[in-house]
This record gives sequence, C-alpha cells and structure tokens, in this order.
Amino acid sequence: MTHQQSGLDIDLGNQCSKNAYNWSKRTFENRKGKAGNLALDIEGGFANMLQFGKTRIGIASDGIGTKIELAERSKIYHTLGYDLLAMVVDDLVAGGFEPTNISNIIDVNLLDYNTIDGLMKGLHDACNFAGVAISGGEIAELGNRIGGYGDGMHFNWCSTAIGVLHESLEKPIDGSDIEVGNVVISLQSRGFRSNGFSLIRRIMQQTYGDLWHIQSYDDETTWGEKLLTPSLVFSPAILSLLNAGLQVNGIAHITGGGIADNFQRVLKKVGVAAKLDNLFPPHLVMQKLQKLGNVELEKAYLYWNMGNGMLIVLPQTSADEALSLLKDANYKARIAGKVVEGQFVHITTDSVDLKETY
Amino acid sequence: MTHQQSGLDIDLGNQCSKNAYNWSKRTFENRKGKAGNLALDIEGGFANMLQFGKTRIGIASDGIGTKIELAERSKIYHTLGYDLLAMVVDDLVAGGFEPTNISNIIDVNLLDYNTIDGLMKGLHDACNFAGVAISGGEIAELGNRIGGYGDGMHFNWCSTAIGVLHESLEKPIDGSDIEVGNVVISLQSRGFRSNGFSLIRRIMQQTYGDLWHIQSYDDETTWGEKLLTPSLVFSPAILSLLNAGLQVNGIAHITGGGIADNFQRVLKKVGVAAKLDNLFPPHLVMQKLQKLGNVELEKAYLYWNMGNGMLIVLPQTSADEALSLLKDANYKARIAGKVVEGQFVHITTDSVDLKETY
Repeated sequence: MTHQQSGLDIDLGNQCSKNAYNWSKRTFENRKGKAGNLALDIEGGFANMLQFGKTRIGIASDGIGTKIELAERSKIYHTLGYDLLAMVVDDLVAGGFEPTNISNIIDVNLLDYNTIDGLMKGLHDACNFAGVAISGGEIAELGNRIGGYGDGMHFNWCSTAIGVLHESLEKPIDGSDIEVGNVVISLQSRGFRSNGFSLIRRIMQQTYGDLWHIQSYDDETTWGEKLLTPSLVFSPAILSLLNAGLQVNGIAHITGGGIADNFQRVLKKVGVAAKLDNLFPPHLVMQKLQKLGNVELEKAYLYWNMGNGMLIVLPQTSADEALSLLKDANYKARIAGKVVEGQFVHITTDSVDLKETY
Repeated sequence: MTHQQSGLDIDLGNQCSKNAYNWSKRTFENRKGKAGNLALDIEGGFANMLQFGKTRIGIASDGIGTKIELAERSKIYHTLGYDLLAMVVDDLVAGGFEPTNISNIIDVNLLDYNTIDGLMKGLHDACNFAGVAISGGEIAELGNRIGGYGDGMHFNWCSTAIGVLHESLEKPIDGSDIEVGNVVISLQSRGFRSNGFSLIRRIMQQTYGDLWHIQSYDDETTWGEKLLTPSLVFSPAILSLLNAGLQVNGIAHITGGGIADNFQRVLKKVGVAAKLDNLFPPHLVMQKLQKLGNVELEKAYLYWNMGNGMLIVLPQTSADEALSLLKDANYKARIAGKVVEGQFVHITTDSVDLKETY
C-alpha cells in the first residue's frame, strides 16, 4: 500500500511542500563554504545540519496543529507544551542531535493571561523533563486571523528547536549505516501525539455531535481529556543510548504519515525493508476511534502512531543493552522486528497483515 | 512620555510577555555549562546568544502579524518574504550576529499552490538579497483556526533565524559600550515594516470603509499596494560596517514600540540619553495616515517607524566612514543625532518636539 493508493488527499500538501523546498534549495548557495553551510539535505523537511566551523547544529520547526482544539474544549492548557516540545526535539534527536534550545511563537486572537500562563508552564515542565532551555519567544495578537473553539483565547503554537550533533557521532543519524539483520526497537507512545487530529475530530463529531468532548470515555475521563493526553518526549530515551556509546543506525519519529512515511524514509537510504511483527499494539483509545469511524487499519497506521512513537534501528548485538538502558530511562521499549532485504515495511498485527511500500 | 502614559493598551501584552519570560528563565539552568548555554539575557525577547563551545549562535523568532491582510486584499504575495526576513534577521544583526539561516512556518486554512509559490518566491528573493539560506520549513493546514480577508488562502507566517556572532566581535552588540558624544546614524526605511498594521487598518476602515484597499493612493497606486510596500532588509547594511572593522556600540531595530521602546532599550544599558534632531522625516504615506486617523505625533512614533528603520550608535570619529560604507551598500543613511547625558530620547521634528523617556 502506498500513500498514493490510500486515497488520502495529501497530493496538494506534497506539491506545496515540494514547491517550498525548491525555493529553499535555491538559497543554499548563500551559505556555501561559510558559517551556516547546509551539510544535510532537507528533503522531507526533517532535522537539518548546519556547520559553524567544527560545531554542527541541527534545526527543526513544527507546530501542534489542531490538537489545540482539545485544550480549548477541555479548558486544560498545561499539557500542550509537551506536545510542542515533542514535535520539534524528537525530530532533532532522530537525526542524532542533542536538543538544547527552543524558541516558540504563540499566535492569539486576543490575549488571556491565565491561558498564556498555562501554556508556558507546560512548556517549562516539558523542557525541564528533556533538559532543554527556552531561549526565545514571541506572542502575537492577530485578532480574527486566529480562530478556534468556544469563547476562550484562541491560538496556534509553533516552535523551532536547535541542538548540537551528539558528541559520539561523526555525522547525523540518517539510516545510511542500516544493515540487514539489524533489530528495530519500538518506543511506546503515550497516546496520540500531535498528528491525525483532523480525522479524530471528524470521527468524534459524527459519533457524538458538537459536544463530543464532554462525553464519557470511561468512568473517570471524558473523551476530551483522553484525546488531550500529552505526547511523551522521546529525546531523553535516545540520548541515553548515545550517551552510553551505543551505535544507532536509524531513527524514525512516527508523526504524520505514520510508520509508512517516517520509517520508510529512513530505510530508503540503503534500500532495505523491515519486518515488524512485534510492534506495541494500538492504544485502546485508537482502537475505539478506529471502530467508531470505521477506519481501515491501513489508514489508521498512516494517520496515527498506533502505539509506537519512535522506531530505532541498531545492531542485534546491542539490542539487550539498549532495552536495558531504555528501561532505566523509564521508557517502554521492545524489539518490534528486524531489517530484511526488500523494499517493503511489513507490519503484522493480531488482526491483519499490513504491507507498506514506498 | 512613557509607554505607560501614552494610553496604549499594551499592559496585558507586557504582562503576558513577562509571564512567558519568567517561565522561560526557569529553564535556562538546563543548559548551564553545556552546549546551548545562554550567554545573554533575553529580557525583551530580542536576539539571544547561545554558546556551543567557541561558536556563538544568535537566534530570533517573529512573524509578520496582520500585514498579511494587505497581501490578501491586494492579491500580491511575493513581497511578504521581505517583511518576514526583515523581522527576524534585523533583530539578529542588531545584536551583532551575521544572519545565516532561517526556518519558516506557514499556517494556512486551506492550501493554495500559487499562493504558497508566491510567498516562497518572495522569501527566496529576500534571502538571496541578504545572503541567508532557508534551511527548514513547515506548512500546516489548520482549517478554521486560520482566518483572513476575502476568499483566497488565509495564512499566518513566522520564522526563526539563526546566525553567528560577527567574527570582528568579542561579545554581542548590546549598548554597553555606548558613550556620551557617540553619534546616532539612522537608516531610512522604505515605508511601514510589519508593525502597527492594526492601527493602520482601523484608520483605513474608518476613512474609506470595507474596500479601502482599492482606493487610489495616487495616480498609479492603490492604498492596498502602497501599504504593502515590503520592508527593506537592513542586515547587509550593518554587516558592511562590521566587515570593515568599524566599532559599533549599539543598534536599535525600530519595530513595535517605535524609537521609544527599541532605542531606549539600547541606551538603558549605560543609562544615557539621545538627542535626535535630524531623523529622516516620516514617509508621506505615514503623514497621510496620521492625518486621516487624527493620530497624535507621539503616538505615531510609538506605533510606526516614521521613516527610520534602524538606529546605529558609533564613535563620532567613525561617522564619515560609516556613512560612506552605507551609501556604497545602497542604503540611505544620515547622522540623526547624538548621545547625551540624561535619561530621555529627545526627538525633534519640524512640527513638534517629542521627548520620550523610559
């Protein structure tokens, strides 16, 4: 199954991204041989490496999309900081960069002090969790250029993170050292991250109507609260491996496009495949939503992380030590499969065999 | 006249910025003595310096606010890139950093390929003008979280720029070397930059009604086109001085808050004043708007750049050489005044004496 065959309306998005990349590429020459020289292509918009003498800086930008509506509906603002940080630093660390600093921009319609306070408290908490400093920011009042749900402050929130190539590395981790026989370790996600919320909201709206967020998810939790579950930030997990000197050959941060887009981009570097027959199962909330929305499993794996937030490729000989280090760092990890010859990512779940190709 | 006395509704904005800064400050410790250590306070949200070994990186984030509505009204999209680049790199260069790379995030309601193409072409043109590389970006579809004028693609656009401390400098340019007797050189702006557009739009709406942008400004230009005039990017001007080894003691990028906020922040470092009796006069479009909106001159100088986009403080002995270098770099510059004892910025214009304090 390819993206093109899946019937998703992503062609225009890809065309626009390609356009933006093409214009960007025509500015690379401006820094050639100078400070800020681009040392890694940015095809796909992932973490890039910039060279400043011997210092190798990674940079990644992203926002948290429409997950913000969950906060507006639930009036809970102090968790989104984890989502924002995860989106940017986990892209960085997937390239072997230790995230060091972030800036952030909050676009609002009208300011509300307490909402800003909640957002920034959460970003502070997340940054302290991940050892990152907030070294800049901007709050912009944009009036009716910003919309949202309900009568609270509406906002959009994005961030740029920078980091330094991990001292144990000679070059970014980009998949080029992956070999057949390598193992694939999966880090379990905590739930939805900041992707796939347009589909989630559509399903909830169709199922429960406008006030879907106040419907009970279980005895203690509303659907709104459940779907707001903050992202687990994975950068400390990866750093625990790099700090121990383990060889890591490839890392995929599972965001929009799911395992298909994100893992295949890594495997493509050397043209190998992977057989994933022991992934973490989808969280119950994902299974419920899939059922409510009658979403094909293949499509669910394209939109959502389905329980697996990051995939790590490393030599089989390092697998046990890696699992032990990840456990010590309080992450749930398991060997999810291995690298094989071929061109496909085979995902085997209890209910269905998925074969994702590129 | 202080900001507090001016009657502007900026208190809530300041409180929110202060809140965000306080949360940020509590994350600085995370990088103390490590890569990404903050070497400059970020009070005020200006360019900060991060240390990576001997490499000193500056970072600045900003957006172009509601000037975007002018592009939506005029359906001209290829000039906003200059505004976006100017907002971030001119903050960086005001700290003595040579801007090297930018990332950018375009939040859209629904994608339109040609609009993205226009925006990115403009950013490309601006980056080539300023010698900067676009090294990352993101386009996010956010549906009704993004509003705007008319039926085209609505969007908000922000950027983070990074740069390296100019090789001629031991520390960032922050005003701490300013001395009484230094001269103040002004760089003429091209028109409005990306600040003060809420006031501009209010005046236009009140004067001409909903379709104000199609009203004639002069025989050849509509008001919409006139107000869309792109920002002049000043970083090449400043770099021309630094590259020649000139000592520059302080630089103010005149954005929101005008000369009052932005120049006084620089003068405050050593507690001196400035007498500006030879500023560039406000552009005609600013004078017209001021008259149409019955805006007090003091207030106009707080909201708008009034013809002066950047103020540079340097020793009197370097003034002639600086003016010559700036002319060679195709910028319009003049000695606008000098640094004096005291606590006030005195602005003398043809029509009124303004005294701005902090």
